[in-house]
Amino acid sequence: MLGNTFGRLFRVTTCGESYGGALQIIVDGVPPGLELSEADIQPDLDRRRPGQSDITSPRQETDVVKIVAGVFNGYTTGAPVGMIIYNVDTLPKHVAQYEKVKELMRPGHADYTYHVKYGRFRDWRGAGRASGRETAGRVAAGALAKKLLAREGVQVVAYTKEMAGIRAREMSFDEIVAGVEQNTARCPDPEAAEKMIQKTLEVKKQGDTVGGIVEIIARGMPPGVGEPVFDKLSAQIAKALMSIGAVKGVEIGEGFSAATKLGSESNDIPYVDGDRVRFRTNHAGGLLGGITNGEDIVARIVVKPTSTISIDQQTVNMFKMEETILAAETRRDATIVPRIVPVAEAMMALVLVDQLMMWRGYSAFIREK
Amino acid sequence: MLGNTFGRLFRVTTCGESYGGALQIIVDGVPPGLELSEADIQPDLDRRRPGQSDITSPRQETDVVKIVAGVFNGYTTGAPVGMIIYNVDTLPKHVAQYEKVKELMRPGHADYTYHVKYGRFRDWRGAGRASGRETAGRVAAGALAKKLLAREGVQVVAYTKEMAGIRAREMSFDEIVAGVEQNTARCPDPEAAEKMIQKTLEVKKQGDTVGGIVEIIARGMPPGVGEPVFDKLSAQIAKALMSIGAVKGVEIGEGFSAATKLGSESNDIPYVDGDRVRFRTNHAGGLLGGITNGEDIVARIVVKPTSTISIDQQTVNMFKMEETILAAETRRDATIVPRIVPVAEAMMALVLVDQLMMWRGYSAFIREK
Amino acid sequence: MLGNTFGRLFRVTTCGESYGGALQIIVDGVPPGLELSEADIQPDLDRRRPGQSDITSPRQETDVVKIVAGVFNGYTTGAPVGMIIYNVDTLPKHVAQYEKVKELMRPGHADYTYHVKYGRFRDWRGAGRASGRETAGRVAAGALAKKLLAREGVQVVAYTKEMAGIRAREMSFDEIVAGVEQNTARCPDPEAAEKMIQKTLEVKKQGDTVGGIVEIIARGMPPGVGEPVFDKLSAQIAKALMSIGAVKGVEIGEGFSAATKLGSESNDIPYVDGDRVRFRTNHAGGLLGGITNGEDIVARIVVKPTSTISIDQQTVNMFKMEETILAAETRRDATIVPRIVPVAEAMMALVLVDQLMMWRGYSAFIREK
Amino acid sequence: MLGNTFGRLFRVTTCGESYGGALQIIVDGVPPGLELSEADIQPDLDRRRPGQSDITSPRQETDVVKIVAGVFNGYTTGAPVGMIIYNVDTLPKHVAQYEKVKELMRPGHADYTYHVKYGRFRDWRGAGRASGRETAGRVAAGALAKKLLAREGVQVVAYTKEMAGIRAREMSFDEIVAGVEQNTARCPDPEAAEKMIQKTLEVKKQGDTVGGIVEIIARGMPPGVGEPVFDKLSAQIAKALMSIGAVKGVEIGEGFSAATKLGSESNDIPYVDGDRVRFRTNHAGGLLGGITNGEDIVARIVVKPTSTISIDQQTVNMFKMEETILAAETRRDATIVPRIVPVAEAMMALVLVDQLMMWRGYSAFIREK
Repeated sequence: MLGNTFGRLFRVTTCGESYGGALQIIVDGVPPGLELSEADIQPDLDRRRPGQSDITSPRQETDVVKIVAGVFNGYTTGAPVGMIIYNVDTLPKHVAQYEKVKELMRPGHADYTYHVKYGRFRDWRGAGRASGRETAGRVAAGALAKKLLAREGVQVVAYTKEMAGIRAREMSFDEIVAGVEQNTARCPDPEAAEKMIQKTLEVKKQGDTVGGIVEIIARGMPPGVGEPVFDKLSAQIAKALMSIGAVKGVEIGEGFSAATKLGSESNDIPYVDGDRVRFRTNHAGGLLGGITNGEDIVARIVVKPTSTISIDQQTVNMFKMEETILAAETRRDATIVPRIVPVAEAMMALVLVDQLMMWRGYSAFIREK
Repeated sequence: MLGNTFGRLFRVTTCGESYGGALQIIVDGVPPGLELSEADIQPDLDRRRPGQSDITSPRQETDVVKIVAGVFNGYTTGAPVGMIIYNVDTLPKHVAQYEKVKELMRPGHADYTYHVKYGRFRDWRGAGRASGRETAGRVAAGALAKKLLAREGVQVVAYTKEMAGIRAREMSFDEIVAGVEQNTARCPDPEAAEKMIQKTLEVKKQGDTVGGIVEIIARGMPPGVGEPVFDKLSAQIAKALMSIGAVKGVEIGEGFSAATKLGSESNDIPYVDGDRVRFRTNHAGGLLGGITNGEDIVARIVVKPTSTISIDQQTVNMFKMEETILAAETRRDATIVPRIVPVAEAMMALVLVDQLMMWRGYSAFIREK
Repeated sequence: MLGNTFGRLFRVTTCGESYGGALQIIVDGVPPGLELSEADIQPDLDRRRPGQSDITSPRQETDVVKIVAGVFNGYTTGAPVGMIIYNVDTLPKHVAQYEKVKELMRPGHADYTYHVKYGRFRDWRGAGRASGRETAGRVAAGALAKKLLAREGVQVVAYTKEMAGIRAREMSFDEIVAGVEQNTARCPDPEAAEKMIQKTLEVKKQGDTVGGIVEIIARGMPPGVGEPVFDKLSAQIAKALMSIGAVKGVEIGEGFSAATKLGSESNDIPYVDGDRVRFRTNHAGGLLGGITNGEDIVARIVVKPTSTISIDQQTVNMFKMEETILAAETRRDATIVPRIVPVAEAMMALVLVDQLMMWRGYSAFIREK
Repeated sequence: MLGNTFGRLFRVTTCGESYGGALQIIVDGVPPGLELSEADIQPDLDRRRPGQSDITSPRQETDVVKIVAGVFNGYTTGAPVGMIIYNVDTLPKHVAQYEKVKELMRPGHADYTYHVKYGRFRDWRGAGRASGRETAGRVAAGALAKKLLAREGVQVVAYTKEMAGIRAREMSFDEIVAGVEQNTARCPDPEAAEKMIQKTLEVKKQGDTVGGIVEIIARGMPPGVGEPVFDKLSAQIAKALMSIGAVKGVEIGEGFSAATKLGSESNDIPYVDGDRVRFRTNHAGGLLGGITNGEDIVARIVVKPTSTISIDQQTVNMFKMEETILAAETRRDATIVPRIVPVAEAMMALVLVDQLMMWRGYSAFIREK
């Protein structure tokens, strides 16, 4: 594996597996003087952890984070911030369950690709590094990034836009912020949320799982952030979000609906609002030419239905190279859409701090415009 | 601008503006012994260049590429390959047209974000660096990457999947390869292509423009390529494709349609095919856990309708900060979807070579599996 | 701080301060199947830790390393290896000593530059991140790299070439390997070592400190490794070694003595030795054009005398901006030269694995030579 | 080759060989609004080019640089600056000379390592990419960097400190700046310069060559620049300078002489000078803990004697693997020390801009100190 560091200036590195000893997170590029303690990180970890509701996994990880470096007397020092999360729910009986199927490809999972790539040495306990568990590291780093951004007047929020085929109505930013934590679907539209949960529980009863769409909004980014032509903010956001397990698509602003629009419908018309330029619509999702235009950054990701289902599936024993049956699995998430919400926020925040830092370094050299 | 280099080992760096002196392309990481001449690069540039048909721009750039470094006696030497494309269609009358509107925000374009970021120094001639012209550099580098991949048994093809609301039917890989260059829509389904072109010309007559969807397929990639957790192949593909101007979304495999699928519908069931594992479906688009599984890599991007339209638009004079009218523009692409096709192939190819090179370096250290 | 990750493919990230909670080390790019346990790492940490002898610091850090990720059933899995070293000797009485002088610049130390850069938030306890303590992270990662290299037939050894003005005689590689751990000076020439230690103890009695030169040799690297023109192996070695605290110079092969040589004296004459090319001398230190030539890589670094001395020094109170006296400090290293030896080995090993991995990835694309 | 890009934010990419078509240089990260034309670049290229005096190569390259991107109306636009230098002195008769010895290892040159690495495809004309000719690209980019630095109040100067065993006396910064271009040795001490030139001409007559030491000084850097622990400014300077062909060592401040100093002699004592801290000596060479302390940055490099000599040498035919004689070569530099001077300035300038940009981006996030 060669890809466990993210970012160019503000840089996150993580390690850790589902049933290994611990997850470690190192965040380089944290400026000194940010008031920081575990209490800033823990809430987002609690939003991500399993065992929150009957639509997500029953695994009982408390995900307690401990800061071991980079903070002194309650403030960041400028040195890299080091965090550790010990794995606690690694009971032998659960490991034994994984051991039984360690030679089988679980459809939809990365067992086969890890087997091809890392061979018999791969950690098959709970999918090892390929487990969604690694996203705890993203969330811890992202919580730090969000705190930094808040100080810059930037707020990042994500929520469940669609789940189990039910789509939330259009809502204002404030409505979303207020509503996202009001239900286990993390959908700020309470009627839609109710339907999403009902539908998901129905599907769960049938042994199946559902997917959905998460929307991420960042408000307050100054215009001018993003580095053409390859490191456009849109490109970095796409990378960041697509790197989350189970995500199969990313769109910005009007996204895929642009395919059927006309130019005259797709262009956002600008106007003068005091001393700044605003836009009458936000089809662009806050990005023009890959650079922020001062409007909300709006991105959406699609989350595939959880691959682990409670239905027998045809599969292959990778060691014996013969076809066989993977028995129904009971310990699972009926959907991971609500748990992806804090992960998506985290990845967006990491990108924004990184690019904002680059832009400020660069623009400090401009003498006049 | 800080983002004009792409790739970690196989690394492309470009510069050049729409109406500047030339585009330069440097490709580092090219192995020695690849037979290479301008004849390998020019055809893809010809596919990208303006002036190809009545649905794309009438600008007359011949885009003649010249290799100036890294090739000796017809073969690459291992040194970085340097290419140059001189701009020729930079007539004063066209520059004058841009000059007239240099203070105005052209809706949908990056004028405003470049103005905010680079100030009065930005090159307003034909959008400068923000012009689609920079994609010639990508295509030149991509042609080289495709030639390398071909030697490894990997073939990359892109085509117009949807344009002006018309969608092509499902086709086999071979059908796509055979058909993509048969019409100006670059859609291998001739009936759909015909409709796409007709619809686009209609819209063009109304002064408007259309968007669409390009699908990119890579066949022949060995299983095992991709670097979790942040540099998954899916993530790098997303970045690569989203960095192309006018692209507002990227999806892999079943993509956004996963939102309404059940787990049992979304999982691809594996089977044994001789000494390898295959899958009965390819919802995953060739990637599991961000690593190739040996099936075709399938990605799609949405291309927004061209922003330049032949209809007057409300806008803002950025220098005077007052609202005004941007007059209809006549010299333009009714759609850029067919011209994005070679660009998308190029970006896919660049990512694949880069990750394949990483994977091989890494795997050379594995003693046994 | 933006620089706590090292390497392009084989990539080490560290965090941790002298008196913080712990040091964390994440090593990405470790191939699967390497047998690895703490027992592989601990010996090098023991060589680096304080409290080894009367010429080094009396601080009592046991530096016990724990692997928390990336290893399963005794073998690396391909996932990043995570290690943690808790700080234990962080007694309040020692912290109190540092607190007394926290406003003063300790001459030769980074107090002032950290104060300018990170302000009042810097961790002044034992120099915080600027402490030599961070090198424990390098050594842990380096031990892993050395184990990987050993499997490839590459051996890295460093030793004290000069200390307190006493220079070791010329020795063979085998003599060096056999002798380096035979005395506390880490000098394989026992007579020179004895003199070095005596001279250092004399200087220590006067309250002063000494510096020296460490030579690092890597044997067994295949020819062809190194990436011109900016990432030549020589350049990467120079960066790696110069990044170690207290190092003020790096030279390769004949190094600074080349200044007074003639071309005819400096060129190494090649000859044919069976099926390979060898050189009659090794002024080049194993590198021509920044690429390995198959001979031993030989580098030397100069280590300045320890900055902390037991003599009163004039200094400045950075908070009050007034001149004052820094009192003699008693808890200190009379020299850190022998403790730098394992650190230098580690940095050399990290560079070699990284560049070897790049070279193999790249060369896997060469079809014939 | 994988290493032709330098820098993290301010990033230079080059290509081009000794007898290829052209050198191309792309500089990314150039802020908009810098007045720039070829006249800013050409003088440094003229200082580097061959044919300047009887102690350097007689090759007649005019090295005329042309800016083809990133500059508009006389100012940088923020887009990457593209430059091209065509090779003109590539006469068939000179190529023929190289062809005659293309199978032979020229001692001291990179022929063998390139042969091992790139095989029979390497460009043997004038050493191809391994030629000192590539440093023209560094110098062009460095001239741009120096202009940027000048605007920030930073001045970089290099000069010949030692050549052919003759060492210049100690001189003030102003004396060095005034004197460096007064003689062909680029040594601001006229008596020493005279002796250097005489000694070099004597050695030249014997068919041999000389080396020397170049000192590089940067004045005006603000304190606080440099990124611990791996990207310390000292480490980046070491990499930058060691990447120059023929350089076998780098030292900072007191450098290798620190080996024989005591701590009390090596520490620089600070004092208060108005509202800033200064140091009574500069043994540290302006860097403490890898971060600037506000004093002059002082680095020195050793340049080995030119490898091409006018004396027959034993060597190996790499194709036939048999020993043979390489005949004396007449077209050569008796020394390259004076030609390295502008290259060393360039590399120092590139590092300083890059790290200054990082530091400013980072520090823009600090709310108070």
